[in-house]
Amino acid sequence: MQTSQAKARSASSSTTGLGSVGLVQPQHFRCDHPITLQCGKTLPHYELVYETYGQLNAARSNAVLVCHALSGHHHAAGYHREDERKPGWWDACIGPGKAIDTNRFFVVSVNNLGGCHGSTGPKSHNPDTGKPYGPDFPIVTVRDWVNSQYQLMQHLEIPSWAAVVGGSLGGMQVMQWAIDRPPLVRNAVVIAAAAKLSAQNIAFNEVARKAILSDPDFRDGHYYEHDTYPKVGLSLARMLGHITYLSDAGMREKFGRELRDGAISFDFDVEFQVESYLNYQGEAFSRSFDANTYLLMTRALDYFDPAEEYDHDLARALSQAQTRFLVLSFTTDWRFSPERSREIVEALLAARRQVTYAEIDCPQGHDSFLINVPRYTSLFRAYMNAIDLDGGPH
Amino acid sequence: MQTSQAKARSASSSTTGLGSVGLVQPQHFRCDHPITLQCGKTLPHYELVYETYGQLNAARSNAVLVCHALSGHHHAAGYHREDERKPGWWDACIGPGKAIDTNRFFVVSVNNLGGCHGSTGPKSHNPDTGKPYGPDFPIVTVRDWVNSQYQLMQHLEIPSWAAVVGGSLGGMQVMQWAIDRPPLVRNAVVIAAAAKLSAQNIAFNEVARKAILSDPDFRDGHYYEHDTYPKVGLSLARMLGHITYLSDAGMREKFGRELRDGAISFDFDVEFQVESYLNYQGEAFSRSFDANTYLLMTRALDYFDPAEEYDHDLARALSQAQTRFLVLSFTTDWRFSPERSREIVEALLAARRQVTYAEIDCPQGHDSFLINVPRYTSLFRAYMNAIDLDGGPH
Repeated sequence: MQTSQAKARSASSSTTGLGSVGLVQPQHFRCDHPITLQCGKTLPHYELVYETYGQLNAARSNAVLVCHALSGHHHAAGYHREDERKPGWWDACIGPGKAIDTNRFFVVSVNNLGGCHGSTGPKSHNPDTGKPYGPDFPIVTVRDWVNSQYQLMQHLEIPSWAAVVGGSLGGMQVMQWAIDRPPLVRNAVVIAAAAKLSAQNIAFNEVARKAILSDPDFRDGHYYEHDTYPKVGLSLARMLGHITYLSDAGMREKFGRELRDGAISFDFDVEFQVESYLNYQGEAFSRSFDANTYLLMTRALDYFDPAEEYDHDLARALSQAQTRFLVLSFTTDWRFSPERSREIVEALLAARRQVTYAEIDCPQGHDSFLINVPRYTSLFRAYMNAIDLDGGPH
Repeated sequence: MQTSQAKARSASSSTTGLGSVGLVQPQHFRCDHPITLQCGKTLPHYELVYETYGQLNAARSNAVLVCHALSGHHHAAGYHREDERKPGWWDACIGPGKAIDTNRFFVVSVNNLGGCHGSTGPKSHNPDTGKPYGPDFPIVTVRDWVNSQYQLMQHLEIPSWAAVVGGSLGGMQVMQWAIDRPPLVRNAVVIAAAAKLSAQNIAFNEVARKAILSDPDFRDGHYYEHDTYPKVGLSLARMLGHITYLSDAGMREKFGRELRDGAISFDFDVEFQVESYLNYQGEAFSRSFDANTYLLMTRALDYFDPAEEYDHDLARALSQAQTRFLVLSFTTDWRFSPERSREIVEALLAARRQVTYAEIDCPQGHDSFLINVPRYTSLFRAYMNAIDLDGGPH
């Protein structure tokens, strides 16, 4: 039923924009191997929800793993329902003829462990208590995600990834894959990422966490049982995050100093369009995302530092990799600025790894990686199209 | 008594650092002229608390007005008590031999209307209700501050300011003085400021406001009556503000990714030094500052746009000024970047006004204006020392 709908949607792709993967449906993978996490705790079993786009070829050589960022999930492309207003979060880059061309690649997109969109996470049933895990869900790291994604890879009988790709926190997973599982990654695409957070990055995360943790409706993370959620705290966290995803220039272009009602009202109600926009974004997000997951994701970001176990030498860490790299950054990204991408590129060069680097000039800041910026998507597509699917490393 | 202590402190300045103004005490000015504010409301009378440093000369030509920023107040230099740990907020720039040399100038530093350090503001008695104003204190603007400072100027019988000086929001007051009261300002020193907030600046203010307004202890601004205060909301606002006052580079230098206890603990407690620092700063600030005043100050920032009434032409607005300008910015300031200062300089040049501009290369971000950065303070001092006190415009 879903499949025939998907075909219908695909056939009528002119109504939803060219290059849509059409209707898709999530799949579930239950892993019965226990996973011991970096924090020392073990989950006896867990479930991952994922989507796939395109067809796995006979040689099983065309699989691409897409890793999501802080607020992402498995639904990266296409639509779940005919009447869905928005496609998956990376529809700008995944689909027939797009950067990750589903006519060519078999794309796997997974909701990370600890997530709130179907994979085992804080909202899931804790077998020890009979209640949702809530704040007792263990802290997960980028390495834990790579390990759980590896189990899915085995389940799907994929011998190696043609590419592992991701932006922001997704790009960090790409680096960890290349370092931890060198033979399994034939290409690594790291977009708008950093080799570790700066003090400023951590500082923003801490303000976001404090907003959530101090919201009375957070109830020490046990809000599910009280049939509530920390709406204000999570809204604040998202508003703050959102400012860091856009650029000063981009916000100026989009909102300037436009007033919502045309004139100053001399009070603390929403007056400027940018306030209105941020409040809307914050509230919408607080309804659709889980606060405990948000906390976990920010800690995964804070802790990511693959160079640490290599004497803080990023080149030594990346010298583990056997893959070719594409590294992309955006000029107006101040969350993970081009300088942070150049650190990765310089480490790769020092490690004598093959790397293509481009800095894309556009005003949309960190969020650029999600958007169809022509210079970005065409460069990304050219790289992906050059990947050799005949089994060689590239 | 205070005066003899002040002399003692001044004499023993070697223990407190050279160039201290020593012990100082606040003074009070009650203005019985009603003030009609830009919002349309009128205060029948009000009080301003201020300090002065140095001596007014016989010609009354050496008075300098210091304007404070968001969280500032009248106590800009020296000490209130012998055992006070920290001097006034601009002690780096005010004192004998310093940029604003109190051997030469008579410095007036005032707590703005709406403040929480002694001037009439939300904590003050509202004659209409018999209770503190709280959220009913009218919204004040930069122009309102200039108007109230003008009353103090008349009270002190100062015919014109040798200079009006300020950083950040203080620099905005300097511009407004130069535009609104041209003959009364002989020099204008605008440091780390902007001609108006950008959408990103407003966005940060909005998140700060939302944190305060949504704190249950804010109680719609009537927290005084409930013997509480919005500790969490104001802490969050300050933490966020603090991130924007520092630079990414400066935070990296100061904190890097240092862990407070040396090892990761895999939880949401404070782990990194930068988190610890921010939490400390936020909580300390929430105890010493008033949330209703914080809200007012952020709105004064948002609304500031002196070009608006001149067809959004900043050069036309600044062509009202008759004064010489010194404009200073700091390379790592991303709250009000050098680009924002250059907008002011370009408008001044277009208005054929005399302006000296310098961009100071230092890592401390927006907060640089408060710090003894030698290239900054020596340039500032050189400009101030060249001011003619014989009654000519400069």
